[in-house]
Amino acid sequence: MAGPPPFRYILDTNQFSRQDLDFFLRQAEKLEEQRREDIFGMLEGKILASLFFESSTRTRLSFETAMLRLGGQVITTVGFQFSSISKGETLYDTMKMVEAYSDIAVIRHPVEGSSRIAAAAVSIPVINAGDGTGQHPTQALLDLYTIFRERGSPDGLRIAFIGDLKFGRTIHSLIHLLQHYNVEMIFISPLDLALPESYKKSLRKQNVSFEETEDMKEMWDCDVAYVTRIQEERFVDKNEFDRLKNSYSINRAFVQASRRNTLIMHPLPRVSELSTDVDDLPNAAYFRQAGYGVTVRMTLLLLCLGNFPEGQS
Amino acid sequence: MAGPPPFRYILDTNQFSRQDLDFFLRQAEKLEEQRREDIFGMLEGKILASLFFESSTRTRLSFETAMLRLGGQVITTVGFQFSSISKGETLYDTMKMVEAYSDIAVIRHPVEGSSRIAAAAVSIPVINAGDGTGQHPTQALLDLYTIFRERGSPDGLRIAFIGDLKFGRTIHSLIHLLQHYNVEMIFISPLDLALPESYKKSLRKQNVSFEETEDMKEMWDCDVAYVTRIQEERFVDKNEFDRLKNSYSINRAFVQASRRNTLIMHPLPRVSELSTDVDDLPNAAYFRQAGYGVTVRMTLLLLCLGNFPEGQS
Amino acid sequence: MAGPPPFRYILDTNQFSRQDLDFFLRQAEKLEEQRREDIFGMLEGKILASLFFESSTRTRLSFETAMLRLGGQVITTVGFQFSSISKGETLYDTMKMVEAYSDIAVIRHPVEGSSRIAAAAVSIPVINAGDGTGQHPTQALLDLYTIFRERGSPDGLRIAFIGDLKFGRTIHSLIHLLQHYNVEMIFISPLDLALPESYKKSLRKQNVSFEETEDMKEMWDCDVAYVTRIQEERFVDKNEFDRLKNSYSINRAFVQASRRNTLIMHPLPRVSELSTDVDDLPNAAYFRQAGYGVTVRMTLLLLCLGNFPEGQS
Repeated sequence: MAGPPPFRYILDTNQFSRQDLDFFLRQAEKLEEQRREDIFGMLEGKILASLFFESSTRTRLSFETAMLRLGGQVITTVGFQFSSISKGETLYDTMKMVEAYSDIAVIRHPVEGSSRIAAAAVSIPVINAGDGTGQHPTQALLDLYTIFRERGSPDGLRIAFIGDLKFGRTIHSLIHLLQHYNVEMIFISPLDLALPESYKKSLRKQNVSFEETEDMKEMWDCDVAYVTRIQEERFVDKNEFDRLKNSYSINRAFVQASRRNTLIMHPLPRVSELSTDVDDLPNAAYFRQAGYGVTVRMTLLLLCLGNFPEGQS
Repeated sequence: MAGPPPFRYILDTNQFSRQDLDFFLRQAEKLEEQRREDIFGMLEGKILASLFFESSTRTRLSFETAMLRLGGQVITTVGFQFSSISKGETLYDTMKMVEAYSDIAVIRHPVEGSSRIAAAAVSIPVINAGDGTGQHPTQALLDLYTIFRERGSPDGLRIAFIGDLKFGRTIHSLIHLLQHYNVEMIFISPLDLALPESYKKSLRKQNVSFEETEDMKEMWDCDVAYVTRIQEERFVDKNEFDRLKNSYSINRAFVQASRRNTLIMHPLPRVSELSTDVDDLPNAAYFRQAGYGVTVRMTLLLLCLGNFPEGQS
Repeated sequence: MAGPPPFRYILDTNQFSRQDLDFFLRQAEKLEEQRREDIFGMLEGKILASLFFESSTRTRLSFETAMLRLGGQVITTVGFQFSSISKGETLYDTMKMVEAYSDIAVIRHPVEGSSRIAAAAVSIPVINAGDGTGQHPTQALLDLYTIFRERGSPDGLRIAFIGDLKFGRTIHSLIHLLQHYNVEMIFISPLDLALPESYKKSLRKQNVSFEETEDMKEMWDCDVAYVTRIQEERFVDKNEFDRLKNSYSINRAFVQASRRNTLIMHPLPRVSELSTDVDDLPNAAYFRQAGYGVTVRMTLLLLCLGNFPEGQS
């Protein structure tokens, strides 16, 4: 049975209602419960075009693994070594070729809005795997699924977002999805990297409860902490960066001081903001998060292709 | 049943007789008529070595898609990052390795004649996917198949070739195949980019009827117009290029003025010589052409490997 | 039935006993005797992560071919374009991602010891495909298997190693494996490229009989000659290199002068040290060696994944 219309293409977190998200979470969970042997072969004979005009190994391999795990096949192109584009071909024309070759396409592109242009060009489903400073909806869905799998429905949870809230694309996308749930959001960051006003305005409009603080210890009262990198290149003053880097670094002792057994998430790659001594704590979810990424992308491929097994929805 | 001997390797358009071409066109058409489920699995357990010493994403993905659609698998290498070659390995030695790994190889190489050297080194079938200024026979076969599928047998058709007839490798290869049919050829180009004398000599020898003109409107009396890019780098005088670029640019109104519902073909990528407002006209065949490319390469893989199903030939 | 514990990961030639090697050789031979149709599908549904942080097309394609021939699938990444590593990710974190995606990983890395770090990070099997100046154990196993297939058990054989014995990684690894057999080793090289003292010490300790010489003709009394490249970059004096290059170059007449029908092996790529006029002699084994590489890697994949068919061991 095909998924509902919002899952015919995946371009933007805006395209999903609360009902869509609940449906999606149930589907992903059901898929994960199935034995691997039942799943393998669902997309036999189908081809995924994996179009990474910008390098993103983690995301690319996650999608390709998802397709192969379902028995499908993959054609890949990485970078603008993409020869016809260097000859001046438009994205529209490239997609018309891709449409002739494959059953579904995943696109990563440095220019915001590219995935929408790509989707408009063709009749096959297109999934946005990140376009410039724009959306990265499948990352947001896998983050949502991680919360759901590890802590149940987000309703009623207190969720901290830590680090670079100003530029962090994954945080912006996840905040957007969580507006559909009855959550409390705590934004923990240096003032210079605070959540932009436009996002706060949107949260107020949706009556989402949120707080802002510079104090890392607020994490201890949260069910979930979503940690991100603080990027050096954002700072004019190198000393300021070094000071913040250390104050926004989380280690094992700090996590264990939590009063709520806070689930630690991170989109990866991490650098110094999350110490490796956290890794073997049971509430360190970030490596499991990578695995859920495959489940989520398998679910999306099945929904987009209308190949979800009978009786699953 | 294996195909006839001319399909044991694909190196040059010269290797085919009229009978071979007729056989090939029938096979490709039969393959296209089969349901996808019947086809999938024909090459299960076979491996294609996709050797692109020169980047050509369109051609590479077309071959890889063809192999995967038949249930086969692909190993790929792109560019001279090909490590053993950078250590001084010869193409002969590289091919001996490829022979040990795979069942069939496709090779794209910047040096003319490379595919012939590659084929001579090994006992597995080798397909030339373009070598330097030399041949690109599978492109010519897909162009021929496009004409056949869209307008029936080329016999009796009036076919225009437009643009850079001097350097256009795809045009030279297609002209060569069409000499086996009773066609009229119209060569439309600026004088500086006219068809080289050697090709005209060959056409006269074969008693192929042809005309040359600079006037684009001659296209209106043709059944097929094969359009190619005029490449800026061919011109010493930039102003001359700009003038020609505009005079050899085809738009919707111009196509609709045709008296013969002219089929518009293009090997792609296109730039300004073919306006996007032509795209949704029913006689704009160039995006379908890309799809026929997969069919044609599936047919060639099956013929080369002798795996064409019983009763098909 | 799973292989014995030494085959749960492949990191170092040191991990194998004589018993392990005998077991391995029998398994590889049995696999080769099976019909291709019986083998295909053994690893259906499994995914190999092919992680080549350093380019090595021959080794990469050999492993990927092995996986595909068994019905498995492959995800690949080549070079440090590996995006998350360029963002500062550690190999440990990269491997945690790979573990979430795949069932087994092959790693090639420029830094010695990397494969051990990679293996320690994850619970899936990891195979070392060469790390820096360190080990390349699967090359040594395929060299051993080549001797076994072409000349039977190495016991009692007289084996010459020719060329750069100082830096040649494949020679060092093979010497190590052959210490488990009752062989005589003849090291033929210019003085400046002689086998390092540490290796000779180890051979003496194991009571392995060996001789050293600069005289190429010693090869004529050997059952096997393992030839390697003399690399120009090792020489300060260009004239010295040119002199040696010529004196350590093997051609057809030289091979035919052998009194023992010496088997000629080479890890490839070759340059001038081995003339192409040797290629079609029956005792030129180096291209068959490449094919055995696929057999050996198939065997290793099956053993590591515990998927060796019942009754095979």
